[in-house]
Amino acid sequence: MTKRPRTIPPSPVALEIVRGHDIPLGVQVREQIANLVTSGDLASGARLPPVRMLAEQLNINQMTVAKAYKDLGDAGFLEARRGGGTFVRAVNRPRQQNRTGFRHTENRPLLSERLFDLARAPGVISFTSNFPQPETKCLEEFRTCVSTVLEEQMETLFRYEAPGGRPELRRRVIELLKQVNIAASEDNILITSGGQQAIDLVVRTLLSPVTPVIVERPAYYGAINVMRSIGARILEVPLESDGMDLNVLEEYLKRYRPRCIYVNPTFQNPTGITTSESKRRGILQLARQYGAIILEDDHCPELRFSGAPVPPIRALAEPDDAVIYVRGFGKVYLPGLRLGFVVAPPSMQNMLRAAKANADLHSNALIQEAFALFLARGKYRSSMTRQRNAYAAQQKLLRERLLHGMPPSTLIGDPDGGLSLWLTLPDGARVTDLYYRAVRHGVAFVSGEAFYASNSDLRTLRISFGHIDEHKLLEGVERLCSLVHDLSRPARSQALILS
Amino acid sequence: MTKRPRTIPPSPVALEIVRGHDIPLGVQVREQIANLVTSGDLASGARLPPVRMLAEQLNINQMTVAKAYKDLGDAGFLEARRGGGTFVRAVNRPRQQNRTGFRHTENRPLLSERLFDLARAPGVISFTSNFPQPETKCLEEFRTCVSTVLEEQMETLFRYEAPGGRPELRRRVIELLKQVNIAASEDNILITSGGQQAIDLVVRTLLSPVTPVIVERPAYYGAINVMRSIGARILEVPLESDGMDLNVLEEYLKRYRPRCIYVNPTFQNPTGITTSESKRRGILQLARQYGAIILEDDHCPELRFSGAPVPPIRALAEPDDAVIYVRGFGKVYLPGLRLGFVVAPPSMQNMLRAAKANADLHSNALIQEAFALFLARGKYRSSMTRQRNAYAAQQKLLRERLLHGMPPSTLIGDPDGGLSLWLTLPDGARVTDLYYRAVRHGVAFVSGEAFYASNSDLRTLRISFGHIDEHKLLEGVERLCSLVHDLSRPARSQALILS
Repeated sequence: MTKRPRTIPPSPVALEIVRGHDIPLGVQVREQIANLVTSGDLASGARLPPVRMLAEQLNINQMTVAKAYKDLGDAGFLEARRGGGTFVRAVNRPRQQNRTGFRHTENRPLLSERLFDLARAPGVISFTSNFPQPETKCLEEFRTCVSTVLEEQMETLFRYEAPGGRPELRRRVIELLKQVNIAASEDNILITSGGQQAIDLVVRTLLSPVTPVIVERPAYYGAINVMRSIGARILEVPLESDGMDLNVLEEYLKRYRPRCIYVNPTFQNPTGITTSESKRRGILQLARQYGAIILEDDHCPELRFSGAPVPPIRALAEPDDAVIYVRGFGKVYLPGLRLGFVVAPPSMQNMLRAAKANADLHSNALIQEAFALFLARGKYRSSMTRQRNAYAAQQKLLRERLLHGMPPSTLIGDPDGGLSLWLTLPDGARVTDLYYRAVRHGVAFVSGEAFYASNSDLRTLRISFGHIDEHKLLEGVERLCSLVHDLSRPARSQALILS
Repeated sequence: MTKRPRTIPPSPVALEIVRGHDIPLGVQVREQIANLVTSGDLASGARLPPVRMLAEQLNINQMTVAKAYKDLGDAGFLEARRGGGTFVRAVNRPRQQNRTGFRHTENRPLLSERLFDLARAPGVISFTSNFPQPETKCLEEFRTCVSTVLEEQMETLFRYEAPGGRPELRRRVIELLKQVNIAASEDNILITSGGQQAIDLVVRTLLSPVTPVIVERPAYYGAINVMRSIGARILEVPLESDGMDLNVLEEYLKRYRPRCIYVNPTFQNPTGITTSESKRRGILQLARQYGAIILEDDHCPELRFSGAPVPPIRALAEPDDAVIYVRGFGKVYLPGLRLGFVVAPPSMQNMLRAAKANADLHSNALIQEAFALFLARGKYRSSMTRQRNAYAAQQKLLRERLLHGMPPSTLIGDPDGGLSLWLTLPDGARVTDLYYRAVRHGVAFVSGEAFYASNSDLRTLRISFGHIDEHKLLEGVERLCSLVHDLSRPARSQALILS
């Protein structure tokens, strides 16, 4: 055995530079190396070529390579060692995560940043945005609300507050909840900084290291990441076309006695699947029977394009059933607002409010009041209707084109609403391969990996159409379909074998 | 042994109603019962008198009592049992907290809510606000900034973003940091939803159940609560007049190898103590020696009334020293804004950004940009100078009056800045006794208990003067001093012995 660092990756891997393309060369280098590390093709401890050498081989500027290495260093992919040389960083499990024994993929945390980089990279047609583009009219309306609130309530907006949220916004939430047959009072509602915080607060309140928790398989990565960060034991129940497999659910409930079932029953993120009413009742019944708390994430019930609404589990439950309901406003009303809420029984409010006070004391009062007024005035409704119709048409078009362009054995979801389609590529395809080819060819999506807590299905991907016009959509689908067909062909010229 | 619920508290305790007073009767009942439960005078499982009986005895409306019981039930103090009757709820430790073995005082989470209730209760002179009242001019300036940003950047404000924060605000933070000799680049800075979230993200990133962490004794309850919620093992190092006792610090570092030292070195909350430069260097040296990470909370360096500024530990450290620096903007610029930041080495940014994405994806973009503009325009500066002078005068007055009115052996802090004074009452006094008498007599403060992780010094209290005019300040001090002098006298008429 030698002490020399391992410099040869498990298999030779190629770096390709595409010129005359919109994606900056540095981003191409950075993204490809990041993907090689993520996929394991560049293993922990592998040595990268010196900056000068890589620059020469790719025929690009040394500064460009140095910058890519630096970015990858800052992002935790690479490290410079004292003796010289740049290496793939050993997966650095934070201490608590080692102790509690959960697996941590170091690159996952970067997902959100990389998505936004991709979405804004020049020339990239990005299918990553699972949220709508608000109409100018809607933004103007919000602007008016901000001005009005600043004029009328200035005195009350700039002081520290109790964690529960502004009463006026809680009253508006009560009105919204009536539309989905959920009865709530102000005391049941906690205002949060978005749906993500709502999930985080509930998870932090309920879970702890090694506490078992059930999620759908696949599930929203924002929820998986929070559970992982705590070190909870995540149990994945496969999704069927009408919701979780109740047999597996019961088996897990019986065997592991999980504290919580996290479910996203309407237009599930990422699959778009809507859990049927009878399965919702089944989940509720099983939760009662085994003493589990349901965390129901209802992220965009308003974005229904077809079919009849299915009542939320919270609406099917008795008042004292342990069903916690969370929703954010960003997915439908105004993305980036960072407002959402939790509906929970009074017995949990004390702990949830404590968690909110620990997290950020309270949410910004100006934004809360402005959005309460925005809801009260109700002018967003016509805008929302128009938007829903436009997105329904877009989803239809996207789906038709994918059905037409993808290989025949590709599975393409058919949701009744929401802003994403879930694809499963034919056997043998690997989305990790597709992913960086796609970025090189100016089309981006979210690799399915992110949505699994373990043993990712590497053939899956999420295609979102929240921020894209028809022309680009068509062009993007064409690029994507062509790449999927190309998947089996070998890498092209200007390749560098990393050694 | 009988199975009857215990209905007799350890010692007879009295409920008093003060009439013709500004505090609503219901609030009086609620707060007193809450305090009896908090202090342990009403023990877990003790039965409260039926609503009708208590109402008759206090000669108040049954609805008032029923409402107080309901509020206390919602807040987790009391519970109605099926067989009838209202009881003090058993301390309900959340599961994870039991497992990790840390002690949890059920009522603590309510502190923030109760503070705000008290601060706004009619007729109560409240010494609870450790943050300033912004000048109207300053608010108008912020309003202008919001309008400008809404006009000029509308398109970019309403979409999901990467977790790091808006570049423009990060650049403004770099400018602010130069004033305290801290060098930082955009990549070192993470924007957070207030100073509380900055602490929370760092703590979540570094600590886990039973990880030892060092805090000053006493310390900011917002930090203690976060550490407690994770189940960290909190080690308290006594504060001396110039900072932590370095001998105890070294002893703890040697014995427990804590992961992190949390320090609030300038105008410490709650004591107002400023750690000397030599002790700052001592802490840094010890942290290096024992491999601990310093979390430096610099909550209001701008509020200095006298003495020369002392450099932050971050400014004394080498670039690669493990010193994380956090600050919120609410304590000085605009309370309630919910913006703050973390400065941390690049090697930690990946984990911190992941924690931020888990917590709330990103902070509201409109507020970030508006505040960046507010800082860039710099008009707040004259306002801040005026305010600093006014608060300096107010602090001086408050301190003189307390020195004059409190019993001679009362210890009163003498900080160089900040908006609080820390008091230690003479031997034998108990702030818990003082606290509810004070509320009954229309004056509120924060009981020192909240600032200890264990074995609270029950003679301590924090008096803050951020939201109070001179007339009220004088009246409040008079009420408080008179109550402290009265502390040993027995309870008065209209008392009810709960049984």
